[in-house]
Amino acid sequence: MTTDLDVVVCEVGLRDGLQMLDTFFPTAEKIAWIEAERAAGVPEIEVTSFVPPKLVPQFVDAQEVVEAALALPDLTVVALMPNLKGAERGVALGVHKLNYVLSVSRTHNLKNVRREREESIADFHRIVAMVKSQPEGRRPVLIGGLSSALGCSYEGAIATDEVVRCAVALAEAGADELMIADTVGYADPALVRKTFKAVQAAVGPLPVNAHFHDTRGLGLANVAAALDCGVRRFEASLAGLGGCQFAPGATGNIVMDDLCFMLDAMGLRTGVDLEKLVAVREIIARNLPGTALYGGLARSGLPRHYVTAVQRGA
Amino acid sequence: MTTDLDVVVCEVGLRDGLQMLDTFFPTAEKIAWIEAERAAGVPEIEVTSFVPPKLVPQFVDAQEVVEAALALPDLTVVALMPNLKGAERGVALGVHKLNYVLSVSRTHNLKNVRREREESIADFHRIVAMVKSQPEGRRPVLIGGLSSALGCSYEGAIATDEVVRCAVALAEAGADELMIADTVGYADPALVRKTFKAVQAAVGPLPVNAHFHDTRGLGLANVAAALDCGVRRFEASLAGLGGCQFAPGATGNIVMDDLCFMLDAMGLRTGVDLEKLVAVREIIARNLPGTALYGGLARSGLPRHYVTAVQRGA
Repeated sequence: MTTDLDVVVCEVGLRDGLQMLDTFFPTAEKIAWIEAERAAGVPEIEVTSFVPPKLVPQFVDAQEVVEAALALPDLTVVALMPNLKGAERGVALGVHKLNYVLSVSRTHNLKNVRREREESIADFHRIVAMVKSQPEGRRPVLIGGLSSALGCSYEGAIATDEVVRCAVALAEAGADELMIADTVGYADPALVRKTFKAVQAAVGPLPVNAHFHDTRGLGLANVAAALDCGVRRFEASLAGLGGCQFAPGATGNIVMDDLCFMLDAMGLRTGVDLEKLVAVREIIARNLPGTALYGGLARSGLPRHYVTAVQRGA
Repeated sequence: MTTDLDVVVCEVGLRDGLQMLDTFFPTAEKIAWIEAERAAGVPEIEVTSFVPPKLVPQFVDAQEVVEAALALPDLTVVALMPNLKGAERGVALGVHKLNYVLSVSRTHNLKNVRREREESIADFHRIVAMVKSQPEGRRPVLIGGLSSALGCSYEGAIATDEVVRCAVALAEAGADELMIADTVGYADPALVRKTFKAVQAAVGPLPVNAHFHDTRGLGLANVAAALDCGVRRFEASLAGLGGCQFAPGATGNIVMDDLCFMLDAMGLRTGVDLEKLVAVREIIARNLPGTALYGGLARSGLPRHYVTAVQRGA
């Protein structure tokens, strides 16, 4: 469903943006957000996380949200799975893509999922085996995510060799795609180039996606660097919602609306209608009054006489 | 004085950031800002504009500010000159660099300086002749600036051929450096690459500098693209102050603090102490209460265990 796009954007605000919030975002409003963003042309949305609801009550409605998302035509429905049990829930519901996260930082992995990285990798092997045992057509795409891969708020800098080692471990275990995440916004364009090139060289043809935070303002510069490396799938959240509850100082995914504007302006087809996308922010604003919403496009509007990719018929 | 730097950053907040404001920024506080930013290691500062004070009362204190700046060791003092008369004031005071601005957009040039572009180019010829007639040692470096070069809020997109034509005109007139400005924040990394490469090819060895606005969040991505083209001098303003009174919707230069962080993180020596630089924001904050101050580094701080270029002894 996304073969005519140059770059695939994946909205992660419903997961990464909401997981830190004390406020419960009403289920019907989550579904309205998903529907509106799909109507704006966003091809992939990470709609929830299969964490135990007693740990993160925000995701108590995971099943209902997933079912509503799966009812939408041409939407790739993504969910986070913290472990084998979460993967089983995702497979049972028929989620299209499941996102598994291993932190390259040992300390962050211990804080985030309370396990050594080797235990996380072993769990991913069990997930792959479970998924491969499913009948064809019921096997979700498995994303092997590498969080804190470009810096960690506990450990500081992360050695590129460690990123490569973890990437190879997930690739060998059977990931269909990899995702490198700058969980706390430490990356810069030079580090992005170095890390992505090293991982791409090590895992061959496996797609390597990117997930950046805009904590220090470098998010879109890092996207541009990753584009240069051939990365063609980016995660972002509308209005820059997001963070990580176990990563102090992590504020804000890259802003989906600005990301789509940049890609569109560069002549890369995303399938997204920029004006419709900006209008979806209203759903966040009315449900999270007082929460900081970021974004230059929403503040300043499209350039004068701007012809979007959608208007160009791309 | 800047030969040991990989990239030269030039603070333009005192000119571009203040020119739109109704509030008069007290002269002593302007000087405190300049002194503090120089103490933080910023090598070049555009300290004022030689426009007639009745047009922009903010710059009524141009002489006093320039004299204070010139008293600081190892600071390159830059000023904007709108015309020959402004250039004469700059030369008389002994300013090190004079910045002349031609808008590539005919409409913006008419609105901004009330002249056809050809008249502006003719005026630049007169400025060059006047400067060259000065005794050696009293000749400021002349920057030929091209504003609205990457888009115009009146005309929309700007043809690259027009940018090249204007750049060549200023180069042939005798500019020592060129400066390409995205006055209203329309640029994207692909357009930056295309435009800078075309101009560099046309003007040979003349340095081509960059001035970006962060209007739609793409400012630092554009810096990264310009770095790839070999650009080594960037204008920015602390906390992202700035805009253009004749360019509707133009908000905010790129954030100096985030720019310096990005360059430093990429291993490029700027001479700037990041923590000292962020502390200078307080001078803006206390003089402009209620004005939006931007910047990720100031919000989130340096990454954990971050070793700056200054601390590395670079």
